[in-house]
Amino acid sequence: MNRLRIVLIGAGNVATHFAFALKKSNHKLVQVYSRNITNAQELALKINAKAINDITHIEQNADLYMIAVSDNAIETILSSFDFSHKKVIHTAGSVPLNIFPPDISNAGILYPFQTFSKKRTINFREVPLCIEANNPEFENFLLDLSSQLSDNVQMVNSDKRKYLHLSGVFACNFVNHLYYIAGNILEEQTLDAKLLFPLIKETAAKIESLSPLQAQTGPALRNDTKSLKKHLDLLTLKPEYREIYKWFSEQIFKTSAKQNKI
Amino acid sequence: MNRLRIVLIGAGNVATHFAFALKKSNHKLVQVYSRNITNAQELALKINAKAINDITHIEQNADLYMIAVSDNAIETILSSFDFSHKKVIHTAGSVPLNIFPPDISNAGILYPFQTFSKKRTINFREVPLCIEANNPEFENFLLDLSSQLSDNVQMVNSDKRKYLHLSGVFACNFVNHLYYIAGNILEEQTLDAKLLFPLIKETAAKIESLSPLQAQTGPALRNDTKSLKKHLDLLTLKPEYREIYKWFSEQIFKTSAKQNKI
Repeated sequence: MNRLRIVLIGAGNVATHFAFALKKSNHKLVQVYSRNITNAQELALKINAKAINDITHIEQNADLYMIAVSDNAIETILSSFDFSHKKVIHTAGSVPLNIFPPDISNAGILYPFQTFSKKRTINFREVPLCIEANNPEFENFLLDLSSQLSDNVQMVNSDKRKYLHLSGVFACNFVNHLYYIAGNILEEQTLDAKLLFPLIKETAAKIESLSPLQAQTGPALRNDTKSLKKHLDLLTLKPEYREIYKWFSEQIFKTSAKQNKI
Repeated sequence: MNRLRIVLIGAGNVATHFAFALKKSNHKLVQVYSRNITNAQELALKINAKAINDITHIEQNADLYMIAVSDNAIETILSSFDFSHKKVIHTAGSVPLNIFPPDISNAGILYPFQTFSKKRTINFREVPLCIEANNPEFENFLLDLSSQLSDNVQMVNSDKRKYLHLSGVFACNFVNHLYYIAGNILEEQTLDAKLLFPLIKETAAKIESLSPLQAQTGPALRNDTKSLKKHLDLLTLKPEYREIYKWFSEQIFKTSAKQNKI
């Protein structure tokens, strides 16, 4: 694959990590677009690209246009510029292929199944990249490009991709909120939230050798009603936490009971 | 510290991991007790101890008695054998120091804040060991012993320890159940649950450099109502998942909104 000249539309977490990975694979990011010029400049500076905040200034002859903006902004981008004879992709989990107008000759998706924060460097080679395209040639093009960036490239159509995104919300965003609650409980007791680190790491590491059903431990699994009651008592002043504690405890017990019957 | 002769009461996940760590630090496990002799034998064989299932056969002259059984069984153990002039500890997060009868001269707790499964080997040196004792000499004894096993030893009293345990249920058991749900959603779509591994690992790894509030991403944080609605629609046939999806999305948005106001 030749060195591509790429226009990056978006300057958020996903755009930033793609920009670094593409640059590392020797592709040329020519422009970074963001509504907010400061955001565009911040990223553009790091990858030696031009920052723009006027969509009509997008250059006409790039080899690839990558739209990495929030889900709801994709349609606006697509209607503000004529992408008809170009190669265009977006990076969103929940937005289907048919969002692209039919006159776009090469349209596709390159969905990275990972959580990105600007402040974290991550090993992009381990990020699952999920591909879909509106024709076989462009699919091959995206396969080649993705294989340069990651060792984990998958074909995933729009219908499955939305479930993939949904599962990620459970395994990442909701999990992260549980970390928040756990840290909160400790800090209120003037205990150091860092005490959680080894537990959180091991809980995550377990899933590579045990299924979540095999890995489960704790009072809910054992239906240890005395401990469950004690915990609910500690949460008297936190009705939301009590509610969620009950929900998980019931579900964990039900799931393991169902499993034991099989 | 001399080589201790230790009686281990319990043969479950916690007992097993303590047994290996104690043996590695050159202590002698003399007996392993379990109601179920097969369980006792399975562990005893690995650490060259004697398996027993009759509590009255516990030997009288051990240097330390470690009770690592389920919370509800601790009282039964304590009432079935005369520990009065011995050194006795339990390993439970939610069971206070005053569970020990006052005639026990040296009573304490050595609570490992980690999730243990027999099939996983873990680096015990990273496990936070939380100590409490009924007198300063025994506290020092437990500090010395714990420091041989782990680089992360903390003094935590009964009142704080129960909150620590509670936080662990959120950060480990409930998190693991979210992994289960996420895997379930993928498997129903014939997608490989392994796709989740990099995301789960990175979500956990993030907390060492970003607070959960800084690390949060996803549609709920952005209050992306369109994506939230799409996800709820995918869960039409899963009322429990819908319920929990709504709860987390509301909480994530509320938490970040509160934070932004500060």
